[in-house]
Amino acid sequence: MLSTYILTLSYKGTRYQGWQRQANTPHTIQQILENALSTLFSTPITTDASGRTDAGVHALGQIVAFRAPRKFSPATLLRALNAHLPPDIRVLRARHTPTPFHPRFDAHSKTYLYKIYNHPIHDPFLVELAWHQPLPLSLPAMRQAARHLIGRHDFSAFFTNPGYPVPDRTRTLYRLTISQPAPHHIEIRATADGFLHRMMRNLVGTLVAVGRQKLSPQQIPLLLESKSRLHAPATAPAHGLYLEKVHYRKPSTPHQSKTSPSPQ
Amino acid sequence: MLSTYILTLSYKGTRYQGWQRQANTPHTIQQILENALSTLFSTPITTDASGRTDAGVHALGQIVAFRAPRKFSPATLLRALNAHLPPDIRVLRARHTPTPFHPRFDAHSKTYLYKIYNHPIHDPFLVELAWHQPLPLSLPAMRQAARHLIGRHDFSAFFTNPGYPVPDRTRTLYRLTISQPAPHHIEIRATADGFLHRMMRNLVGTLVAVGRQKLSPQQIPLLLESKSRLHAPATAPAHGLYLEKVHYRKPSTPHQSKTSPSPQ
Repeated sequence: MLSTYILTLSYKGTRYQGWQRQANTPHTIQQILENALSTLFSTPITTDASGRTDAGVHALGQIVAFRAPRKFSPATLLRALNAHLPPDIRVLRARHTPTPFHPRFDAHSKTYLYKIYNHPIHDPFLVELAWHQPLPLSLPAMRQAARHLIGRHDFSAFFTNPGYPVPDRTRTLYRLTISQPAPHHIEIRATADGFLHRMMRNLVGTLVAVGRQKLSPQQIPLLLESKSRLHAPATAPAHGLYLEKVHYRKPSTPHQSKTSPSPQ
Repeated sequence: MLSTYILTLSYKGTRYQGWQRQANTPHTIQQILENALSTLFSTPITTDASGRTDAGVHALGQIVAFRAPRKFSPATLLRALNAHLPPDIRVLRARHTPTPFHPRFDAHSKTYLYKIYNHPIHDPFLVELAWHQPLPLSLPAMRQAARHLIGRHDFSAFFTNPGYPVPDRTRTLYRLTISQPAPHHIEIRATADGFLHRMMRNLVGTLVAVGRQKLSPQQIPLLLESKSRLHAPATAPAHGLYLEKVHYRKPSTPHQSKTSPSPQ
């Protein structure tokens, strides 16, 4: 009898070619996880995630599900998986669910975090973990720009063509905040019902251009209306990006925790 | 005319065979720094540091000095050096000094920081940056043990033979604190007038044994009196250790900053 398992994963994406299994490389997080699961269950296991993360992108709370024989308790599976996985990929939580569950289709929204280190000299411990911005950034200007981006919009101006058609580029951005948890550290957080290909990195690139006074917050509505990537500033690099949390509405699904935002 | 330059360095030690230049490997921080300096000054430059750091050990404020022609302003040298060095080695500060200065002999004391991640599952972002302790640690017991270690003692029990004679193993430990800056994160800080070979890692190994209740704080005085490494718990691994700060007394030397402790 098959059961549905749900995992919460954290990974440092530096060494990997992103989440998604690919024909030409074994260095994807999905491939490494599926190899470990297939070994543990002695049968080929395929997984679904809440979404892909690109090469170099990190995750603090990726949600993954798979169906497999009810061979392990969640606690045993968690320990056995962590013993099989490399140390830069960790399973933080494992559970069974009796109801059908798909990490992507059942997701209500997702939160991405983007880290910036804003100091003339980069921190040698953050080389793979934050985007270095040596020149000062105006946080008030960035926050003013963010207010124009929040809401339901066609985000074509912040969309990089992935090579397959995406006819509808309308998404709802529930929340876009810019915070400074410590001197020189800037965190940009976005919660949306969905993110287009490279959307978060394109939003960050634009917010940083505003912070550098290369673009004014008042130009954001025009940029959105242009619906063209040609007018928007450059994409921020992958290594500052973290999939922080996937939000689910149904009480049976994994992350109805106290830190879930309540989108209005 | 030669001038003395003083540098403050931060480095992530993971990729390196420690600070000190060695015949058999180019992967030491000193070698890489001296190569960059020799290129910039177009003449062979040798450097002195406040002390060696072992393979895998990090630095937040290593102090390095060298004599070279007065070819660059400190600001120019800082920028040029950072452009030549790999991103996991950064020069945070550069200055000239008119007075004779030796980073090791003129140091009054040093502060080492040791980071522990105390949670059943390690953080994938801290694999190279903190020692994973999956089982609970008693901080009150560790603090009680620390009180027995502070002061002037023969620290032979916390000394790993480096292969050369060290006749006098008496050092003064001014400060030994155990703090919890965030949930699951434990930081141990020690300030002393000198550290014997592996002394900080041996102190941490013992404090963790006390935290795990394998040793009682009351046994620390006996351990010190034994003057033998044979009775002390295992050495903590290199990757949790950071040379945090070198303290100098003379006003002409680099780090008379507000964060200097005032050893009593």
